[in-house]
Amino acid sequence: MNEYFNETIKLAKKSLKYGDVPIGAIVVKDGIIIGKGYNTREKHENVLGHAEINAINMASKRLNNWNLNGCKLYVTLKPCSMCMEIIKQSRITNVYYLTNKLSSKHEFNQTKIEKFNNIEMSKEYLELLQSFFKNLREKK
Amino acid sequence: MNEYFNETIKLAKKSLKYGDVPIGAIVVKDGIIIGKGYNTREKHENVLGHAEINAINMASKRLNNWNLNGCKLYVTLKPCSMCMEIIKQSRITNVYYLTNKLSSKHEFNQTKIEKFNNIEMSKEYLELLQSFFKNLREKK
Repeated sequence: MNEYFNETIKLAKKSLKYGDVPIGAIVVKDGIIIGKGYNTREKHENVLGHAEINAINMASKRLNNWNLNGCKLYVTLKPCSMCMEIIKQSRITNVYYLTNKLSSKHEFNQTKIEKFNNIEMSKEYLELLQSFFKNLREKK
Repeated sequence: MNEYFNETIKLAKKSLKYGDVPIGAIVVKDGIIIGKGYNTREKHENVLGHAEINAINMASKRLNNWNLNGCKLYVTLKPCSMCMEIIKQSRITNVYYLTNKLSSKHEFNQTKIEKFNNIEMSKEYLELLQSFFKNLREKK
């Protein structure tokens, strides 16, 4: 496992060039590195610039599949809650991290969420959604 | 708010072409739509293809800023936990959704997470990280 983590540390160092927090990650399948990423949030001005996400994107492109079941992710720092949710949805099987010291303690929770009450529009959309799932079931 | 949700429903319909669950989202700043997205997970074989994420990506590009504080997100279906985390980190101020019926009840939680125990590598990386934050503080 040392060689994998050496690679993640190398990647982490690349983040520094643009003032990003140094974090590196790789995705491994059957012993082969299929995705590499380092933190580029500031570099690319994109909230999705975290190292884990960049590595997952590369792996998905390589496999031409969003489902990364059977893959392992190695990352220098314990993933934040956002990345953990993405990792889970990508069906990655194992995550290994090097340290959880200095992990972000921020909870980004200034976002308010509300339901919009418009019965007709809600009904129109719900029908669209139900018809989608009905078609899907009929195809199976 | 009706015009915004009409737009999200129009976008949702675009998802159907590639067999994606019909979901549409927009990001609005000061009354102007700066990001539009529809679900493209299957179309692009990317776990990050959810409508909200596509809309956030477009908005960030438009503003050249990952921080979308002050923006509002309108989405047909209540965001999944992954998208909620991304929305929170993007600092979007308000989220409005049309329905939470048929929201995913899956918990994608087959991922195991473990700390890798290598004291030297852990130390090397921690120094890198600490030095980054030390430099950052000194610049301020």
